[in-house]
Amino acid sequence: MPQLRKNPVTREWVIVATERSRRPTDFKPGEDLAHRPAFSPNCPFCPGNELMTPGEIESYRAGSTRPNDPGWSVRVVPNKFPALMVEGDLDRAGEGMYDVMNGVGAHEVIIECPEHDLSPATMSPRQVEEMLASYRARCVDLTQDRRFKYINIFRNHGRVAGASLEHPHSQLIALPMVPQNVLLEVEGCARYYEFHERCVYCDMVRQEIGQGDRVVSLNDDFVAFCPFAAKYPFEVWILPRTHVRSFADETESRLRAFGAILQEALVRIDYCLNFPAYNYTVVTAPINQERERDFHWHLAIMPRLTVSAGFEMGSGVHINVTAPEDAARHLRNTTAPAMAAVESNGQTSSMP
Amino acid sequence: MPQLRKNPVTREWVIVATERSRRPTDFKPGEDLAHRPAFSPNCPFCPGNELMTPGEIESYRAGSTRPNDPGWSVRVVPNKFPALMVEGDLDRAGEGMYDVMNGVGAHEVIIECPEHDLSPATMSPRQVEEMLASYRARCVDLTQDRRFKYINIFRNHGRVAGASLEHPHSQLIALPMVPQNVLLEVEGCARYYEFHERCVYCDMVRQEIGQGDRVVSLNDDFVAFCPFAAKYPFEVWILPRTHVRSFADETESRLRAFGAILQEALVRIDYCLNFPAYNYTVVTAPINQERERDFHWHLAIMPRLTVSAGFEMGSGVHINVTAPEDAARHLRNTTAPAMAAVESNGQTSSMP
Repeated sequence: MPQLRKNPVTREWVIVATERSRRPTDFKPGEDLAHRPAFSPNCPFCPGNELMTPGEIESYRAGSTRPNDPGWSVRVVPNKFPALMVEGDLDRAGEGMYDVMNGVGAHEVIIECPEHDLSPATMSPRQVEEMLASYRARCVDLTQDRRFKYINIFRNHGRVAGASLEHPHSQLIALPMVPQNVLLEVEGCARYYEFHERCVYCDMVRQEIGQGDRVVSLNDDFVAFCPFAAKYPFEVWILPRTHVRSFADETESRLRAFGAILQEALVRIDYCLNFPAYNYTVVTAPINQERERDFHWHLAIMPRLTVSAGFEMGSGVHINVTAPEDAARHLRNTTAPAMAAVESNGQTSSMP
Repeated sequence: MPQLRKNPVTREWVIVATERSRRPTDFKPGEDLAHRPAFSPNCPFCPGNELMTPGEIESYRAGSTRPNDPGWSVRVVPNKFPALMVEGDLDRAGEGMYDVMNGVGAHEVIIECPEHDLSPATMSPRQVEEMLASYRARCVDLTQDRRFKYINIFRNHGRVAGASLEHPHSQLIALPMVPQNVLLEVEGCARYYEFHERCVYCDMVRQEIGQGDRVVSLNDDFVAFCPFAAKYPFEVWILPRTHVRSFADETESRLRAFGAILQEALVRIDYCLNFPAYNYTVVTAPINQERERDFHWHLAIMPRLTVSAGFEMGSGVHINVTAPEDAARHLRNTTAPAMAAVESNGQTSSMP
């Protein structure tokens, strides 16, 4: 019998169609994401091609090298085709019954490493840390701009996940409003807090760790699990185990622990599902306003194994063909060449 | 400068990124949806293969033919791999902090015509009417079942739109709850009504017809336009010009007018965009409860020209690379072989 499961924060229902249940090997990746060249001469993000991008906003680089020259390890540049423009005041206007704002915002690209063929699953732990540190530095900097109400960090991996360039990169969009999905979460957190006087995500972390069947891995500071009302097969969330409102509030040592569990989750997804396309996104507290108090930031990894169709687009209800408990079990049981190294590192351990 | 536009019903913001604006020819279809065989021997929906589907629920057929034999023009069957099961009581339970319901519902397939190679753009007007009449008959029938709170009718056209079978078909899912997206619309309609004492969609129809620049076509009973805050390039909505709460409330003669404008919109999309994949979905009032009063049903056609990525999935904010005004102008200016026939019919006419 299929099940309907409700997201306790957003109140969205998901159909877990167990009759259609699929094993990891039933999903066939449409593109080869495991084999790419280490350097691609025409790639605007490869070293030596720095002038093919707009001038860099920030970079981690060897002390003696200059901005927009090679020698960087992480490089942040404006998106060449931005969805929003950073210059200008925030004009609001009506157009009859409609509301419109001019498209003020920031759209930046975080080039994660010089190597064309890596990803956060295969980068060194140090590279992952620098990538995360640059996420945070950009959040802190952009929060100064009072026009912005939300900063969305996301990563598109593979063409079917919307990546138009192969070279490993994340993106950041700063928005002049709080987007609908985040508002739903903010309202859900507040509603739960009002009723229970506890954070909904803190409760979720406790229940998931206690129950264990949806946990993929955990370390002292973070837990990775397949959410109860997962919209997508093999969706994985990573949450701070204690209440941390915003990604920008994380410390350097906690980001190291976060990098370790993120990398482990991505390695498990790669080897369990044969290097699928995926998206991940940081869901964090809104900025420059009051609506942030009860938030508990998290990261959602969404492998692109199935196609959303008219039902999902019309109703907002997703049909998930793999029960999250099954997905977590498969991910826990995955062994990968890189796994041994991560585990001997002592930073993360899977649940029984 | 990009624009942020707000859906006046759901309050969702959309980014219209005019700097990235794309013309119809910039979108390249990934599959050939214009050329299919008229009959496909292994297709479970082709005539003669009726026993490859579960037994039919309803059909339009020649008087002398029997159920599950050839001779039908429209055929409704249960989905062989249903997302929800029609048998059983609606059990609700808690699982710690989570809510769960068993997956009671109906999942039906409307096989739109015997011909494997047609679509609602190329079927005869009579076939489109029968397809719509069967949509309505199934809605009326399933509304009798008090377990159901919403009936979602949708069509997936092409593989990238989620269609797993080529043969022209629509689907229907009856749900034991009102899905999130419909709730947002119900609440938005009620909020607007409370403030203005007018229906938001009635106002929208008036403004769109008065302004004209987003209108694709209109007839006496319906209007087709590209919505102000369209999430997708070349998204088209069709609305009743007068206040009609539910799709099931439509009369036979009005469904004829709806069929004509739907067919015209799909023909324009086919010829303007070189036969793209698309989804359409009927958005209508919930059933078996009070939450239906202020609703105004409509149909949304969403061509699948771009890929949703991490930003859209995380924030719920869509980036639309074609301004709805441009999309409507391109659709209005499209000429197609079938167009002359539709127009000489006198049922629809495009705006200047």
